[in-house]
Parts: sequence; structure tokens; C-alpha cells
Amino acid sequence: MTTISRVLIALIAITAFSNCSSDKSSDSRNRPEQAIFPKGDPGAATNFSGTVYNYGLVANDSTYNTLVGNVYFEKGARSNWHVHPGGQLLIILDGEGYHQMEGQPKQMMKKGEVVKCPPNVKHWHGATENSSLTQMYILPKTEKGIVNWLEPVTDDQYKSKLD
Amino acid sequence: MTTISRVLIALIAITAFSNCSSDKSSDSRNRPEQAIFPKGDPGAATNFSGTVYNYGLVANDSTYNTLVGNVYFEKGARSNWHVHPGGQLLIILDGEGYHQMEGQPKQMMKKGEVVKCPPNVKHWHGATENSSLTQMYILPKTEKGIVNWLEPVTDDQYKSKLD
Repeated sequence: MTTISRVLIALIAITAFSNCSSDKSSDSRNRPEQAIFPKGDPGAATNFSGTVYNYGLVANDSTYNTLVGNVYFEKGARSNWHVHPGGQLLIILDGEGYHQMEGQPKQMMKKGEVVKCPPNVKHWHGATENSSLTQMYILPKTEKGIVNWLEPVTDDQYKSKLD
Repeated sequence: MTTISRVLIALIAITAFSNCSSDKSSDSRNRPEQAIFPKGDPGAATNFSGTVYNYGLVANDSTYNTLVGNVYFEKGARSNWHVHPGGQLLIILDGEGYHQMEGQPKQMMKKGEVVKCPPNVKHWHGATENSSLTQMYILPKTEKGIVNWLEPVTDDQYKSKLD
């Protein structure tokens, strides 16, 4: 083989390898940077454990009495226990998370699923240990109130058995 | 150059080309088949023009009085004019669409944006001529009613100037 043909083979091999690399990088489409909404603002450390961002979509007013937003929980992050006087609807947009209502087993939530929590039921929600969670929340009937924050979820509660 | 080195170069070139092909196919992630929710059921021809699918997320009940769903409009598809007695919140999940309230110019809606239509305001919404539209809808205060369907949007109305 001539030197020129060796160089040609090396160049084509480098091109093939760089194509592989850009193929893998397209997996980043599912990362929050490529998500539907901006990450938003960090959640208050007094109400959440781990890294959490909130992005407001619909502010509360007397026309709709509905508050809508999107929360991004990093792996292992979760809310404190809390109560919504008008209840809450969770729409899971990406990833996997947990939801638990007081006195009931923890349940899994996955992309595309909907979870309802009735008015005045104490609950918490967050990402699983191995996946981030992107969840839209809808708070209806805000004339009854928005949220009452309670104590943190303990590690034992977070690791409790699934439903 | 020897025959063997020519064959090697050809093989590596084919590998590089096939990597390019798989790279392009990853663009399918943004197609409705890869979307967050299933497409759902076809919209009634009496209420929509073009191809439209509706997927229910939260059924109406007296606990939340909120109806939530996702509509996928193919390019050029749109709703008839209609009215929501409790108003409507639209959350754009993918693509581009139009929204028009009676007596106002047509407005553009894009991925990540939110559009509000107040109670009892006559409006229509749908995809643009060149893009499909995936839009979640939230109907609050359903105790006032869900929707009153009206006449189709004419081609002149659909093609009217943007705001």
C-alpha cells in the first residue's frame, strides 16, 4: 500500500468516527436544555430536597382561578410534604418520578401519565433515584388557596416500597 | 494502490455513509410518533377542518372542575369557531399554530408558549400552513360549561394577517 492510500484510509476512518460521535450527541434532545420550557428558577431549599427548578406558565388570577407551571427535579430531588386546598393535577412530560399521598403507598409516575391529588390531601412528589422528572402541575380552584408547605420527606419515606 | 487497499477504502466509506443515514433518522424524535402522549381519537369533522386528533388527559368531574387534553393538528388543520363558558388555557408542546379571538388579529403560537382565551370569547385555533401543532388545553371552571361549537373558519379568515 502506498503512503497516500494509508493517509486516505486514516482520513476516512476519522470521518467515520466523528460521525459516530455526532450520532451519540443527538441523545441530548431529551435533556432539559432541549425541553419544551426553560428550566426556570431554583426551588426554595425550605420546600424541596435536592436540585429543583420551577417555571411558571399561568399566573393565578380571578378569571381562570388556575395556576400552571412546570417543575424539573434532578435525580433524587423531591418536594416536602404539602397540601393544595383545591387539589392538584400532575402531567408527566419527561422522565420518571414518585408521588405519595399520606397513608398510601408511593406510586411511580412516567412520561405521558397523569396523577391527581384531591383537595386537602397531604402529598409529596419528586424524581426517582435514577431519573430526572419533568412534570407540569395544574392547581384548580385557587380561590380556596395555593399550597401549604409541611415537613421534609425523610430518606425512609423516599425509599419506601412502591404500590 | 493495491486491490486490497481499494476495497478497504470502499468499505470504510460505506460505513461512514451508513452512520450519516442513522444520524438523520434521529430527527424522528420530534415527530408525533415520538411525542409525550398518544395521538388519540380523530376530531369530529363537524367541529374541525383537516386532520385533528384529541387525547383526553383529565376527564371533567366535580372535584377539580377542570378538563385537560392534548390536540394534534396536522399542517393546515384547524377548529371551527367556538366558545368556552369558563375560558381556555393553551400550552403549546410542539410545532406552530394560529389562535384568533373574534374582532382581533390572528396570533402565532409556538412551542413552549401559553395562550389564554377568556370565558365566552369566540375563538379558533389550529396548525399553520407549514407546521403541525401539538397543544395541551386546560378548561377551568367547567361548572359553567365545556364548549359551544359554531361555524367553520373560512379560508380567508385562516389566511388573514398576523398580529
